[in-house]
Amino acid sequence: MKVTVLGAGAWGTALALELRDGGHEVTLWGHDPIRLREIHQSRMNARYLPRIPIPESVLLESDLDRALKNSEFAVMAVPTKALRATAKRIAGFSGIIVSVAKGIEHDTGLTMSQILRQEVPTAHAAVLSGPTFAPEVARRMPSAAVAASDSEAAALATQEIFHRPYFRIYTNRDVLGVELGAALKNVIAIAAGVCDGLGFGDNSKAALVTRAISEIRRLGVACGAKPETFAGLSGLGDLTVTCFSRQSRNRAFGERIGKGEKVPDILPTLSSVAEGYPTAKSAEQLARKFAVDAPIIAEVYAMLYEQKAPVDALRDLVSRDSKSED
Amino acid sequence: MKVTVLGAGAWGTALALELRDGGHEVTLWGHDPIRLREIHQSRMNARYLPRIPIPESVLLESDLDRALKNSEFAVMAVPTKALRATAKRIAGFSGIIVSVAKGIEHDTGLTMSQILRQEVPTAHAAVLSGPTFAPEVARRMPSAAVAASDSEAAALATQEIFHRPYFRIYTNRDVLGVELGAALKNVIAIAAGVCDGLGFGDNSKAALVTRAISEIRRLGVACGAKPETFAGLSGLGDLTVTCFSRQSRNRAFGERIGKGEKVPDILPTLSSVAEGYPTAKSAEQLARKFAVDAPIIAEVYAMLYEQKAPVDALRDLVSRDSKSED
Repeated sequence: MKVTVLGAGAWGTALALELRDGGHEVTLWGHDPIRLREIHQSRMNARYLPRIPIPESVLLESDLDRALKNSEFAVMAVPTKALRATAKRIAGFSGIIVSVAKGIEHDTGLTMSQILRQEVPTAHAAVLSGPTFAPEVARRMPSAAVAASDSEAAALATQEIFHRPYFRIYTNRDVLGVELGAALKNVIAIAAGVCDGLGFGDNSKAALVTRAISEIRRLGVACGAKPETFAGLSGLGDLTVTCFSRQSRNRAFGERIGKGEKVPDILPTLSSVAEGYPTAKSAEQLARKFAVDAPIIAEVYAMLYEQKAPVDALRDLVSRDSKSED
Repeated sequence: MKVTVLGAGAWGTALALELRDGGHEVTLWGHDPIRLREIHQSRMNARYLPRIPIPESVLLESDLDRALKNSEFAVMAVPTKALRATAKRIAGFSGIIVSVAKGIEHDTGLTMSQILRQEVPTAHAAVLSGPTFAPEVARRMPSAAVAASDSEAAALATQEIFHRPYFRIYTNRDVLGVELGAALKNVIAIAAGVCDGLGFGDNSKAALVTRAISEIRRLGVACGAKPETFAGLSGLGDLTVTCFSRQSRNRAFGERIGKGEKVPDILPTLSSVAEGYPTAKSAEQLARKFAVDAPIIAEVYAMLYEQKAPVDALRDLVSRDSKSED
């Protein structure tokens, strides 16, 4: 099957390799022709996925129309803030379009697949999401993710093209829950990183993760998602690994905040987007819109956008909490 | 208030310090007079809690009757396999007796508080449980745990004596759920360690943790616990930290198995008990008794007690799984 991956960052490149392993004809599109030429010449994505060879059979293409020609699947692996603009450019696409970006649009509160349905109404939208660090998938380490779509056929087709012996794909029909879990965990990961930066230990982080999954579920259900989705790979699975792993960009971003660096000083130094930064703003908007109590999101928002000091945020977080679990 | 902590391991010692911080009169009892004398002389528990000073005001006592005299609280911090025998020796105690051990008795399937209710019927049984590595609590790092009891008064009293600015205590009335979550997570942590030992990454572990919380909940509910308890500190919170933290003894035990060491060779080298080892047997018995599908527990049991090879166990685990999340 012909598959086009849009976005030549770490995750887009890893998924191109993963799809190529399945015998698909894979074209990787990137917006920067110079970087694509570098990848073409070195057969490696040195910036985002160092030391992983990219076989000749993965085609590289900087022209979007040529990249998508005859494709049955388009995988949207661009950063969330570029998703709507990229989608507009492929408005006539009529295959299955799979979002693998994790975010919520500012002001509209739309998830990535909701934007795709607006901008590419001729396509069938699906989502692939889960606790999947790109370098591990690129190294063929055992991983699992969820293929979600309103359309059962699109969910099953997405499961089928991505399923590998090392990459187990489950289906889920609750697209909204899958996307909200994935996006909101990046906000929580910043809070987990702040705990690390302040020198707290694993006990603190375990308490944070426990309170966070309830908060994410509460907000997600208010938005219309199913509660049980947040106990799955894209909720609990992605949240725990993002909070505990050294590999998480959002956790690392929060760690620098906890150590005293200022947000405006950190942002320009990041080599890839910490999606939790824009998502904290969308999440705070959603919580206000639906009048959901979301103390962790509120404190992360205050640290990121209102210069609240990390120690004050953490202290206020703890003091807002109730005294009974049940 | 006079409080006696029974068991001078890492957790018993850390809790003695924690209770002393709250202004209580604390006596720490241990079964080994020689070790107690060492602690008394050095004011440190060098073996289990190195580099943490123990103030003179924490009394050390190797005579059980003298240790408990006039105590209103007894904290049972002995290893699970010693709990029943220790409880028999204090059969007439009539205060609140708080289990902090995490396990399930072989053959009877009883939790620690259930054993306490049998052996010390004159006391009020409670449980303190959560994601709490002893050295972090002893260093006064922010931590949280659950105080659970059938009796609301005993739960509130337990919350009150343990609550510190750095140690937040929630109450929960589902004692069985709290205890089963705490015990079963040690079995899962062994599986997480096996993943590490086999060289798998964070993606694999996130998938394992996600499947595990469902499995623990399923088994717990079959035993009579409430499903929501497993989303709390003693379920999800303790499970995630035990699977991801380098500090977990059970994870480390599993890692050695994954690297190819044999269980009978590892056991005599452990400085403290890996409670997941005996609990895997009890958990397997419970799953059989209640006819609950518990594939992770089954594979851990097979690795520990039937010499099943780790690669075979992990392969069988993945292949037994379904293809849909919902």
